[in-house]
Amino acid sequence: MQKLTIIKVGGKIVEEPETLQALLQDFAKIEGHKILVHGGGRSATQLANRLGIESQMVDGRRVTDAETLKVVTMVYAGLVNKNIVAKLQALNVNALGLTGADLNYMRSEKRPVRDVDYGFVGDVKEIQSSILANLIEQGVVPVLAPLTHDKKGNMLNTNADTIAGETAKALAKHFDVTLMFCFEKKGVLADAENEESVIAEITRESFANYVKDGVIKGGMIPKLDNAYEAIDAGVKEVIITKAESIFTGGGTKVI
Amino acid sequence: MQKLTIIKVGGKIVEEPETLQALLQDFAKIEGHKILVHGGGRSATQLANRLGIESQMVDGRRVTDAETLKVVTMVYAGLVNKNIVAKLQALNVNALGLTGADLNYMRSEKRPVRDVDYGFVGDVKEIQSSILANLIEQGVVPVLAPLTHDKKGNMLNTNADTIAGETAKALAKHFDVTLMFCFEKKGVLADAENEESVIAEITRESFANYVKDGVIKGGMIPKLDNAYEAIDAGVKEVIITKAESIFTGGGTKVI
Repeated sequence: MQKLTIIKVGGKIVEEPETLQALLQDFAKIEGHKILVHGGGRSATQLANRLGIESQMVDGRRVTDAETLKVVTMVYAGLVNKNIVAKLQALNVNALGLTGADLNYMRSEKRPVRDVDYGFVGDVKEIQSSILANLIEQGVVPVLAPLTHDKKGNMLNTNADTIAGETAKALAKHFDVTLMFCFEKKGVLADAENEESVIAEITRESFANYVKDGVIKGGMIPKLDNAYEAIDAGVKEVIITKAESIFTGGGTKVI
Repeated sequence: MQKLTIIKVGGKIVEEPETLQALLQDFAKIEGHKILVHGGGRSATQLANRLGIESQMVDGRRVTDAETLKVVTMVYAGLVNKNIVAKLQALNVNALGLTGADLNYMRSEKRPVRDVDYGFVGDVKEIQSSILANLIEQGVVPVLAPLTHDKKGNMLNTNADTIAGETAKALAKHFDVTLMFCFEKKGVLADAENEESVIAEITRESFANYVKDGVIKGGMIPKLDNAYEAIDAGVKEVIITKAESIFTGGGTKVI
């Protein structure tokens, strides 16, 4: 099978012109098939503020009412996505911006209301990967915005990590997938205070031990749970690293 | 060659929920390959107003400064395009929203400043139609936003009639193209005061006579000039009609 690299970058790096340009130049150099998944939360909050719409967050997730859904659709699918697509095209990367509604590639369902009503937030239910795989084989580079649809006419807001993970799992049927989550640290750290204490490789066994010993904790645990879920579904490797290191290597390899 | 119907609808009809739903239901019923090209000017003006950005128009064209470019990118590629794509998917139409930057399908150049500086407005220079034609043959229905890019990293605002006309011309190599321009009248009228005086068919000869006699005038002349330009480039027929009539027929056929 051919290799496919899926890179998820958070909002901040794609929302500042200098860091975005550096990221896209590195991304353009990656050989073989690739996909970029982006966030855009800071720009969404900024636009919402300018429009007098309050941004309500619960556990780091945006509560998405009807007005906020319009804001994130404009920012993620419009402003951020097309800015990236245009800049990749300038670097001769044949980018194609997509939401889950486009080609019906990712269908979700509105999250049921339990303790919190997240509003128009979608939990992924179904992926159509064959047209996407076919486009990738033709050299197209999908740029995925963190939005899905419910196949009933509504867009839904969906976490970019989830988009990346679900896409990686679905495309593992077609490609040897490397999934790279970029965040603000160089990798998973053995010592939170020491940026250089990157754990080069985590296995299931060492993961369990690190959690038991309190070395890995907090938000890193669900990130690694997700990584193993992807690996269980056939993804070849998951790398957790800094966006600045996507081309030079490094970070934490989850196997 | 297989038939392809390209329908261009203005902003108003796609910006009001009821007229949009009626349009999309009619559009879904059209047999064979199809493309929808949309505007979105009213929503752009509305968002610009809410953000305190002045909308400046010259001869019906929007002057697009850097802030306005962000607004139209958000509204055309985000809000309007994804709303249409999601609603078409609900009607089992496999829609794919695109700007000219996506798949590099339409490259333009920033319009040179002569009497007026239109800002970030693009004049179409080059179309890559083969991936688009290939997707259409697979049953994909492109939904085109009125935006192009300069292949140097910038999005550019481009008139939706132009997008429709240039796409029709480029795809005439691959398909038997019918290009349908929808506007507020039932067709080209012989008597501006009489909605029922639709001229059923216009030939080059009758066009010249109608212009000479003052029957066809004003903004209809460039519309028909564009229609003949498309026909010269291999488009099979151009129809000018009301959006409500795209499925039932009628309007003015330009041959």
